[in-house]
Amino acid sequence: MGKLGCFFNPKSVAVIGVSRNPKKVGHVIFRNFVEGKFRENIYPVNPNVNEILGYKCYPSVLKIPRRIDLVVISIPAMMVPKALEECGKKKVPAVIIISGGFKEIGNVELENEVIRILKKYRIRVIGPNCVGIFDPYSEVDTFFLPRYKLERPGEGSIAFISQSGALGSVVLDWMSMKGYKISKFISYGNAADVDEADLIKYLANDKRTKVICAYFEGVNDGRKFYDIVSKVANRKPVIALKGGKTEEGNRAVSSHTGSLAGQSEIYSAAFEQSGVIEAENLEDIFDFARVLSTQPVPKGNRVQIITDGGGFGVLATDWIISNGLRLAKMKKESMRGMKKIFPEHVVLKNPIDLTGDADVERYRVAIDAALKDDNVDMVAIITLFQIPTLTAEITDVVSSFAERRKKPIVVIAAGGRFTEVLKKSMEDFGVPTFSYPEKAAKALRALYDYRLARSGS
Amino acid sequence: MGKLGCFFNPKSVAVIGVSRNPKKVGHVIFRNFVEGKFRENIYPVNPNVNEILGYKCYPSVLKIPRRIDLVVISIPAMMVPKALEECGKKKVPAVIIISGGFKEIGNVELENEVIRILKKYRIRVIGPNCVGIFDPYSEVDTFFLPRYKLERPGEGSIAFISQSGALGSVVLDWMSMKGYKISKFISYGNAADVDEADLIKYLANDKRTKVICAYFEGVNDGRKFYDIVSKVANRKPVIALKGGKTEEGNRAVSSHTGSLAGQSEIYSAAFEQSGVIEAENLEDIFDFARVLSTQPVPKGNRVQIITDGGGFGVLATDWIISNGLRLAKMKKESMRGMKKIFPEHVVLKNPIDLTGDADVERYRVAIDAALKDDNVDMVAIITLFQIPTLTAEITDVVSSFAERRKKPIVVIAAGGRFTEVLKKSMEDFGVPTFSYPEKAAKALRALYDYRLARSGS
Repeated sequence: MGKLGCFFNPKSVAVIGVSRNPKKVGHVIFRNFVEGKFRENIYPVNPNVNEILGYKCYPSVLKIPRRIDLVVISIPAMMVPKALEECGKKKVPAVIIISGGFKEIGNVELENEVIRILKKYRIRVIGPNCVGIFDPYSEVDTFFLPRYKLERPGEGSIAFISQSGALGSVVLDWMSMKGYKISKFISYGNAADVDEADLIKYLANDKRTKVICAYFEGVNDGRKFYDIVSKVANRKPVIALKGGKTEEGNRAVSSHTGSLAGQSEIYSAAFEQSGVIEAENLEDIFDFARVLSTQPVPKGNRVQIITDGGGFGVLATDWIISNGLRLAKMKKESMRGMKKIFPEHVVLKNPIDLTGDADVERYRVAIDAALKDDNVDMVAIITLFQIPTLTAEITDVVSSFAERRKKPIVVIAAGGRFTEVLKKSMEDFGVPTFSYPEKAAKALRALYDYRLARSGS
Repeated sequence: MGKLGCFFNPKSVAVIGVSRNPKKVGHVIFRNFVEGKFRENIYPVNPNVNEILGYKCYPSVLKIPRRIDLVVISIPAMMVPKALEECGKKKVPAVIIISGGFKEIGNVELENEVIRILKKYRIRVIGPNCVGIFDPYSEVDTFFLPRYKLERPGEGSIAFISQSGALGSVVLDWMSMKGYKISKFISYGNAADVDEADLIKYLANDKRTKVICAYFEGVNDGRKFYDIVSKVANRKPVIALKGGKTEEGNRAVSSHTGSLAGQSEIYSAAFEQSGVIEAENLEDIFDFARVLSTQPVPKGNRVQIITDGGGFGVLATDWIISNGLRLAKMKKESMRGMKKIFPEHVVLKNPIDLTGDADVERYRVAIDAALKDDNVDMVAIITLFQIPTLTAEITDVVSSFAERRKKPIVVIAAGGRFTEVLKKSMEDFGVPTFSYPEKAAKALRALYDYRLARSGS
């Protein structure tokens, strides 16, 4: 396990700055660990208190009678250097500094002192001024927000890194509500040591992570970032959203993280050259991630649409084309096969319109034909559940096709609670579902972009 | 009450083609009326049955012993002309023909016969090949889908018209789940008589309708449409989504409704000239409608952002600028007032970043200052509820500011269930809430577009 591994899979953890006040940051973090898997391997540090939640409290990490893999620091900024010095002496490999009050408010010198100490002892540091890590597998959880205010997502394969703590927290909360599953979540703040490039490099080799997502307003070291993502992005999808794209947004960045945001065009060009898939907004990130983490890489950009509603077929067509994908032209024999079975009013073009009296069997035949047809690279299935003939079994049929992972499949279904329940059951089987055609089309485009990144074109 | 009024506020209704089979379209529609306000004023027509759900069944509308304001026809296409002829003799002013099997599948002659009859008797007809009307006030409901599959929204002020029945149904279902309220919902199908222009003209004078939304793939009569919307769009917001924008989408339209979709650029130009606000997708429509139906018209395009999270402030800035709006520059005295009260780390620029320890009072002061400042036209409030200091009372504060309707206010809040509950409570007070900055910015842009349409610039 490298030093970065200690952040995610520590055998022992100390929290420096654990107050008895349950509202205080250090207390919430300590409790996260106590209530998680760290029951026996968690140590509170606070010189003014003897015991917290039944745990003996230590005046300093140096006094803890065993090796510590990870220290979480949550004390006033001025006191951080001394605590970090002690971590160094204790030979702690990894430290997360939650505390703010450094570079982001102009205290550059204090941050430089932190950097000097971490270099001296070769400690790897995440932060300062960050929310830190949530790892659903190891249960490392330094998010200092109560669970009723901030839910935590389950075990999955999407990693997310964010400079911004508040934005990271919001995204984590939103992902849990949506039922999206994650591998690791990191808010890295000022990046005094570990930066976005280091994290991407680490996640590239993390077996639980299938897709790496990032939000940042600027990068720490442009060259380093470019070199690393160029190597990563053609073997594991990297999705990035850059904040501060406009001049005005850029100015807002400088009041926020103090980063030099840099010109948006330069970022976009670097993303494209290195194979990073650029997201336009936060929703895009997870739309892309869901498809990239569950679907096979397509051979090309030819999409077959199968629908039970003409209007949605029209809108899906518009969005597939405007995202630079193409409508597949299925072979004559595929069409003939369907023509034999289907009633005459079914429209056998692209979109295939199974029309408002479509049943599950009609969908099964059409999806099967599209998956077997060499002229089809991806399949977009529109299932408007409002029609009377379409029953809930459609979810089993679509899920079983998706399980075979022959070609990418996405489902578009909009509506009320009934629709949402059926979509959820497909999502659980790894079928990405979308409410509206434009999102499905954009996500298929991202999948095709990854195909291009892999083939180096 | 004009003839179109009979569609929405009939005193008496007959349904032609009411089967005893509860799964059949005619039965579902009849039951909608029986279970609604029409208990005493609804008449089933079916020559083969004596009684349905306790109601005497008539062999023909001609046999019903009273005046009928609205007839709904749901019988095979071939039998429609005879039934319509009888409606004519009975002097029925308004008929909805649900039945399909006309122009849309090539039966142009049969449709022409329908047109000949409705002209002869001067009957106004919606359809054929449509889902018809849902009016939450009068409870006219010809949507023939069970409520567990298709929920119905409550009484509100947004009207929606759609050529496509399936798309209309999906939208209705989705709106109910979202809690959006409507005035009228019309799927008008082949538009043999009443078309999108007639409906927009009617809705322009409907007091319950504050915003008119439309989805269509082509218009019946371009000149008529343009003339009508030009007169309407500068006094009541009209939002339109055009399906079939790409050449391929256009081809899909011709298999769907048989409309000549026409070039997208021509539509966009006509929309702009006539003051119609064009939506890019279905979600846009309702994002725009919520803001346009609840917020006052802004004086200009200067937006003040108030946030508790820097990252969201940056993203909001980017989207406000890229949507052609401007960042407001608050007056020095406004800033001085806040500077006196706020802690030093609050960022008094635009965005105003109240930071991660913001409380309700800090928001109250900042919103109040922005609303009073002449340099501010609209206010975008970002409330990330994940921070520990922000309590649920913020919803009361924002709602009470919104109630005064001085300037447009929108709220951006993303997260899990806790966040959704708080957003819902603001929505109920007429504050439009958005999960992500890009949607709020687009909606404010739509509001500003309406301001331009009103002033004729």
